[in-house]
Amino acid sequence: MRDLSGGATIWLTGLPSAGKTTLAHALAKRLADAGYDRIEVLDGDVAREHLTKGLGFSREDRSENVRRIGWVASLLARNGVVVLASVISPYRDDRDAVRQMHEGRFVEVHVATPVEVCATRDVKGLYAKQRAGEITGLTGVDDPYEPPLHPEAVVHTHEQSIDESVEQVWRALS
Amino acid sequence: MRDLSGGATIWLTGLPSAGKTTLAHALAKRLADAGYDRIEVLDGDVAREHLTKGLGFSREDRSENVRRIGWVASLLARNGVVVLASVISPYRDDRDAVRQMHEGRFVEVHVATPVEVCATRDVKGLYAKQRAGEITGLTGVDDPYEPPLHPEAVVHTHEQSIDESVEQVWRALS
Repeated sequence: MRDLSGGATIWLTGLPSAGKTTLAHALAKRLADAGYDRIEVLDGDVAREHLTKGLGFSREDRSENVRRIGWVASLLARNGVVVLASVISPYRDDRDAVRQMHEGRFVEVHVATPVEVCATRDVKGLYAKQRAGEITGLTGVDDPYEPPLHPEAVVHTHEQSIDESVEQVWRALS
Repeated sequence: MRDLSGGATIWLTGLPSAGKTTLAHALAKRLADAGYDRIEVLDGDVAREHLTKGLGFSREDRSENVRRIGWVASLLARNGVVVLASVISPYRDDRDAVRQMHEGRFVEVHVATPVEVCATRDVKGLYAKQRAGEITGLTGVDDPYEPPLHPEAVVHTHEQSIDESVEQVWRALS
């Protein structure tokens, strides 16, 4: 049994369409199957409705967005919840600030799908819009993404099945 | 034993300096003494740092502030936490929206200290500032406060000790 019963945050960072949310929900299922009953998926897009409405995509607003989700994750985690946070979180210092907020376990997972693969998946049509000139500031294309230097796991979703990615993170938790 | 083990939100609403935060912390202690180990105080002022920075005191911003704290409370409560939320939350429809977000137990407590008493306590000097013309939009003075119509408890902090107020809410939980 992994020592997550005291709560933990598993923070999935990566480009749009990297597969963060899919992996978060698959991990939530894996945790439920293993007997955990306090699991919460915090999705960056969902949080933008409830937590960070009004924030845009400037450096400063992205930072506030990430730190705000991080604060909520830390509240949940310190109350015994295993949080799966699926947030682009492009800047290293914001992710590090979120790690610092956590009294307990914090596991950073880089969902390191290459931008070419993400642009092909393009779940929300953002890459197409950027190419068409309809939007700018797309992380990994014309906006920065700073990969984690020392993440607890790096997942290559384009080279393995979702089950394999889940097992890889699972092993990193032990 | 009160049936709060599945999580709950105890929402303390009232004017500035009504005694909401004091009561929240006293209730947290009472819960801890009774054996609860997942307790979180969500204070409106603290939340303004972490959750709602940038929001002001317009009708719209107050509404967003209350609903955002309410959403976080609901996440915690559905994961088994007993949340003590200490938030002015002046508008009835915002508080009702927060109640609706909760799948489980939601207990609305009106900390009904009269404005004259609050203005004398004036913990943060807001009433003095309003009198001096330095601020406007002070809830209960020159900004609306809509008392709950059907709260689970109404606490008169100016007529009883803090221990008595705690016991009163405690009884309302049973």
